Amino acid sequence: MSKHPELLETLRQIAGPGQVLSEGDLTAWELDWRKRSRGKALAVVRPATTAEVAAIVKACAAAGVSIVTQGGNTGLAVGSTPDDSGQQVVLSLQRMNAVRQIDAANLTVTVEAGCILQTLQEAADKAGFLFPLSLAAEGSCTIGGNLATNAGGTQVVRYGNARDLCLGLEVVTAQGDIWNGLSGLRKDNTGYDLRDLFIGSEGTLGVITAATLKLYPQPAVQLTAWAAVPSMQDAVNLLALAHQHLGAGLTGFEVMGQFALSLVAKNFRQLRVPLYEETPFCVLLENSDPESETHAREQFERLLETALDKGCVTDAVVAENLAQAHQLWHIRESIPLAQAEEGLNIKHDISVAVSRIPEFVEVTDALLVQAIPGVRLVNFGHLGDGNLHYNVQAPADGDAQAFLREHEDTVNSLVYDSVARFGGSFSAEHGVGSLKLDKLEHYKSPVALGMMRAIKTALDPQNLMNPGRVIRV
Amino acid sequence: MSKHPELLETLRQIAGPGQVLSEGDLTAWELDWRKRSRGKALAVVRPATTAEVAAIVKACAAAGVSIVTQGGNTGLAVGSTPDDSGQQVVLSLQRMNAVRQIDAANLTVTVEAGCILQTLQEAADKAGFLFPLSLAAEGSCTIGGNLATNAGGTQVVRYGNARDLCLGLEVVTAQGDIWNGLSGLRKDNTGYDLRDLFIGSEGTLGVITAATLKLYPQPAVQLTAWAAVPSMQDAVNLLALAHQHLGAGLTGFEVMGQFALSLVAKNFRQLRVPLYEETPFCVLLENSDPESETHAREQFERLLETALDKGCVTDAVVAENLAQAHQLWHIRESIPLAQAEEGLNIKHDISVAVSRIPEFVEVTDALLVQAIPGVRLVNFGHLGDGNLHYNVQAPADGDAQAFLREHEDTVNSLVYDSVARFGGSFSAEHGVGSLKLDKLEHYKSPVALGMMRAIKTALDPQNLMNPGRVIRV
Repeated sequence: MSKHPELLETLRQIAGPGQVLSEGDLTAWELDWRKRSRGKALAVVRPATTAEVAAIVKACAAAGVSIVTQGGNTGLAVGSTPDDSGQQVVLSLQRMNAVRQIDAANLTVTVEAGCILQTLQEAADKAGFLFPLSLAAEGSCTIGGNLATNAGGTQVVRYGNARDLCLGLEVVTAQGDIWNGLSGLRKDNTGYDLRDLFIGSEGTLGVITAATLKLYPQPAVQLTAWAAVPSMQDAVNLLALAHQHLGAGLTGFEVMGQFALSLVAKNFRQLRVPLYEETPFCVLLENSDPESETHAREQFERLLETALDKGCVTDAVVAENLAQAHQLWHIRESIPLAQAEEGLNIKHDISVAVSRIPEFVEVTDALLVQAIPGVRLVNFGHLGDGNLHYNVQAPADGDAQAFLREHEDTVNSLVYDSVARFGGSFSAEHGVGSLKLDKLEHYKSPVALGMMRAIKTALDPQNLMNPGRVIRV
Repeated sequence: MSKHPELLETLRQIAGPGQVLSEGDLTAWELDWRKRSRGKALAVVRPATTAEVAAIVKACAAAGVSIVTQGGNTGLAVGSTPDDSGQQVVLSLQRMNAVRQIDAANLTVTVEAGCILQTLQEAADKAGFLFPLSLAAEGSCTIGGNLATNAGGTQVVRYGNARDLCLGLEVVTAQGDIWNGLSGLRKDNTGYDLRDLFIGSEGTLGVITAATLKLYPQPAVQLTAWAAVPSMQDAVNLLALAHQHLGAGLTGFEVMGQFALSLVAKNFRQLRVPLYEETPFCVLLENSDPESETHAREQFERLLETALDKGCVTDAVVAENLAQAHQLWHIRESIPLAQAEEGLNIKHDISVAVSRIPEFVEVTDALLVQAIPGVRLVNFGHLGDGNLHYNVQAPADGDAQAFLREHEDTVNSLVYDSVARFGGSFSAEHGVGSLKLDKLEHYKSPVALGMMRAIKTALDPQNLMNPGRVIRV
């Protein structure tokens, strides 16, 4: 095992001696977010500029040392921590965090990869605009990581995933060349779409160092409603009505199962969960209005009255003020924590076509209950995008550790096989990383896998960019 | 020169004898839309199914014969007609024109590549939805061609390009394998984005045979307004106001220069062009409202009053009825024809950041007028997307043929060099084809060109898919 003293010396010359960490406690870079995997880095390098990144990639390529690019290290699929060989360089982009430019008339912002998502949201807000990407880790994840994993979140139903918000990238290729694709253009049909190839490639094709992103006008008001629905099919019917009534005003549509909400009610007693006791599902809706609170409220009321008439909603409340709206969102966002309080569980981040969600849930619930009597289903997620966090909790009186040990593989296969039968995805918004590498090989078509391998080999022939993540070559 | 009798026999067995055309008048497939280039095909093959397409690609690959895929043959960059070798197979997808499925709850439609865009729009409309891609050739172009060239059109400011409307593709690879990527999923982070690689690749990486596309709720009403603006900067300022006031309701924003409108007024006297005589630019705005005509009209009036107050609009009319709205759009769409009536001209389909459009136009106008005294500038386009059709007409009393002969190269270099200095694109929505192949090599960064070549070689190692288009290898 080489300690690569010459490479480390070169890296120190490039980034400065204080920015190459190879001793001491590197836990922050080596341990993944969910603490499932701990690696060992040759070194952590923290460049300040794109030119430094390019020089680092060139030096590593010359030494045959591979690179794991890291942003906020908040990924959920173990894609940004080093393996345990002690032979990989972690390229941390956290020092490259400048908001380079806001172009108001073009509705764009150009920002470096290491910028924290929340910092970017705040910069947009200060300039009078909305940057709509929003997710639980926004206080610590970086926009580079969001793009590398094509992050989703709560406003996808209106604004799309990270991919849909990006107009251009600056990238350091696997050869250490700088590609300046920082176009703020909304139309540019000059050759292959390299931008979208790097987005979602999880650092395996090159290093995203900066991006030009879309801004939107700030809505005049955002209103939140909470509705009890008699079934998942009614939730889907409500979604169709919401699209019709609110148009592009519909910026959030979350579904939550009764058991998921009961865990919040039980474990966070200060959060008063509305309506859940009498109904199998609740839905949280958000209406962003460019006009006025009065207008937004009228629209919401008309929608909910229609839904009550049609029977797809049995009861509903509209938040009276911002504090109530935050409270409702807080309930939704507390489900993962409430689950954790209840003990270990098995998580799935899956998607199927919205139209097939009710049947998928019915069929898969039944399969699980049959396979593991007493199993408890924590079902919630972004129904507007067909994306469920379809999680499985141990039986109430069982040993959760033993449950996981005995049943995790069975449960995963059962859920993912069902997803595949419904034409869905085993990773809707969290990516592949190393955690779902085997799933990709199992569930993805051989034709797609073949094209992915050909592209990886073409752009990273030495296999030095985050090797072993997303796709094995 | 081989006539490949064995290949033709195999193709007849695959597609049926009547579907392999190798004799008689093949002008419809061999001559490009703008009649700039005429090729000679070995044969035109017209498969009916994806399996037939796969078998055809395999047979051609075995024979070392290259394939030019063709939809409606309405492209503007000479990308879908054969070269003059008589050695290429034209793969016409016009028989594969089924609307396979409309999934109302998922807001998607799955359609075969050869479906005419207008047929798709009508199928969506009949099911109560909007498919928003809209462009001049919609009566004859196919959705496969729209995706292969990432078509733009008039509603991009709200709904994006063809790329943004596509959730999944079915593709026959260069090896003749079928990739079923017809996902109706709005979130799917399982590996590289193959979909967006094929979109915009103009048939050079494989054959798009079907697609799953997004549908939108139909707006309750669409209103059209026409505004006189004192300068291009005022048009940009009006755009910002329109984004603020209308939000996602803003579905069209077109700018037209006085000279462009004067050509319409002169050559189509029955079209009464409003307001243009006293102002250098007019703007056409479209407001799509999910609510009601009253609401849409109030919003428009509020916007235009604000714009009048701020001085970025000097006068404006809102269409009173559908006939008036169509009339306004008809004026906008008659500009290319009015130009043709006026004689030969040099067309450019360029984009720069919206914020830089006023300076770009001022600087480039001045350069052209200086280089060619008396030159007339026909400037109009999709300002909402930063996309101008920045065309150049011969001086009023000159010989247009001689003008083109003497000045076309100079004018192109001058315009495209200026576009490059402003960080723009020499092909905003029309693609590269063979017409702009040299431009791509000249203006694209060597790093991007290198990645494009590597991808082309990786996915089409025999270089049989539309060779010599988009990128030379």
